[in-house]
Amino acid sequence: MNLLIVHPNDFISENMVSISGPRLHHIRNILKTDIDQSLAMGILNGSIGTGILASRNESRDLFQVQFSSPPPPALNVTLILALPRPKVFRRILQSITSLGVKHIILLHAFRVEKSYWQSPFLSDTSIFTQCIKGLEQAKDTMVPFIQMEKKFKPFVEDQLPLLLKDKKGYIAHPYCESSFGNPEPPAVVAIGPEGGFIPYEVQLLEKAGMQSFSMGARILTTETAASVLLSRFLPF
Amino acid sequence: MNLLIVHPNDFISENMVSISGPRLHHIRNILKTDIDQSLAMGILNGSIGTGILASRNESRDLFQVQFSSPPPPALNVTLILALPRPKVFRRILQSITSLGVKHIILLHAFRVEKSYWQSPFLSDTSIFTQCIKGLEQAKDTMVPFIQMEKKFKPFVEDQLPLLLKDKKGYIAHPYCESSFGNPEPPAVVAIGPEGGFIPYEVQLLEKAGMQSFSMGARILTTETAASVLLSRFLPF
Repeated sequence: MNLLIVHPNDFISENMVSISGPRLHHIRNILKTDIDQSLAMGILNGSIGTGILASRNESRDLFQVQFSSPPPPALNVTLILALPRPKVFRRILQSITSLGVKHIILLHAFRVEKSYWQSPFLSDTSIFTQCIKGLEQAKDTMVPFIQMEKKFKPFVEDQLPLLLKDKKGYIAHPYCESSFGNPEPPAVVAIGPEGGFIPYEVQLLEKAGMQSFSMGARILTTETAASVLLSRFLPF
Repeated sequence: MNLLIVHPNDFISENMVSISGPRLHHIRNILKTDIDQSLAMGILNGSIGTGILASRNESRDLFQVQFSSPPPPALNVTLILALPRPKVFRRILQSITSLGVKHIILLHAFRVEKSYWQSPFLSDTSIFTQCIKGLEQAKDTMVPFIQMEKKFKPFVEDQLPLLLKDKKGYIAHPYCESSFGNPEPPAVVAIGPEGGFIPYEVQLLEKAGMQSFSMGARILTTETAASVLLSRFLPF
């Protein structure tokens, strides 16, 4: 954790927050913050700044806080992800959140097991927890919007063309000739399931305005592919 | 697994291999390969091709094999990795192997916990297993060379300059101004521990010929950072 996210209801006055629960545990046992020491903090979906540990009792720490900077710029890429195995999804969500993606669309596809949609890892609470981990890693505060689309065809035919109105769209597709290069945001990037989108799905995605390209001979896991693809849009 | 790796001692004749053990379990229960069906195969550190399931008994499957293609090109990047937490290291090793890195140097640094070096995940067997998973994911056969350097200074002062003789070297360093862009291989890339290399370490690395650059305001986990950095060298 490189930044502690505080919630609006942590504020007990304009410049003072009270932290308890799991975050308190982290502050005391991992960060080992002492009285008068400062900590990078950010307001959920708001500015970033610092908090100075002002007082401590058994159940809470009080920080005097000042928030003056905006969070780091978002990455203007909409990521369409064929729903991965739930355990893998948890990790991916953290890493793509840390990379600054603010719109993630989880999509059903032929090679996605239907049971994945029942996973407790897709609950609002679990998703929120992973997003916060990603944000706290990257010193960001802006929670991404996660959209779930359990029907491939209606999403791709009706919604995707609207998303692509002012953005270029890319499909990572192993068996294809075009290369990727360094495209500029804003963009929409689609990553298929293990085994890839089936040809019919690629056809529909292309009809909606997406362009297929190859990542080379190596087949990557969804997790590695996501970081590798998003890297090409990152401003460094 | 997108390619099954066979070992020289699996061959029972010039064009026939016998598979047993965990790989047999995978073929039968995950891939569900039947008689006369074919499977992508590669020889450990050798060519890739296909195997056709010729016969099956309780304890082994016999495949008629043909190996005619070279494995995918290596990524000509030497990755210096401050030893991550062992559990994380296992996953990273798989993903950087899948990306084609063939020389990985695990380096001690001030912010690496000494106990990490005692982990069973650093045993030859565990490392080999993770590498094979990465190779089988990426349809590669060439096992990377893993070098362990438990002393920072002698490695950086004595060995690193030789490594850099015909390569550019890059240090991912959060608090630095230069940008990375799309450097070309061959290269040496160093990724610090959680919390980064300390200034003294950065100084020594720079003195040896490495160049610091920033990945932007976001602090990434080692795992995400590795994929994001290697992406810039991948030919797609």
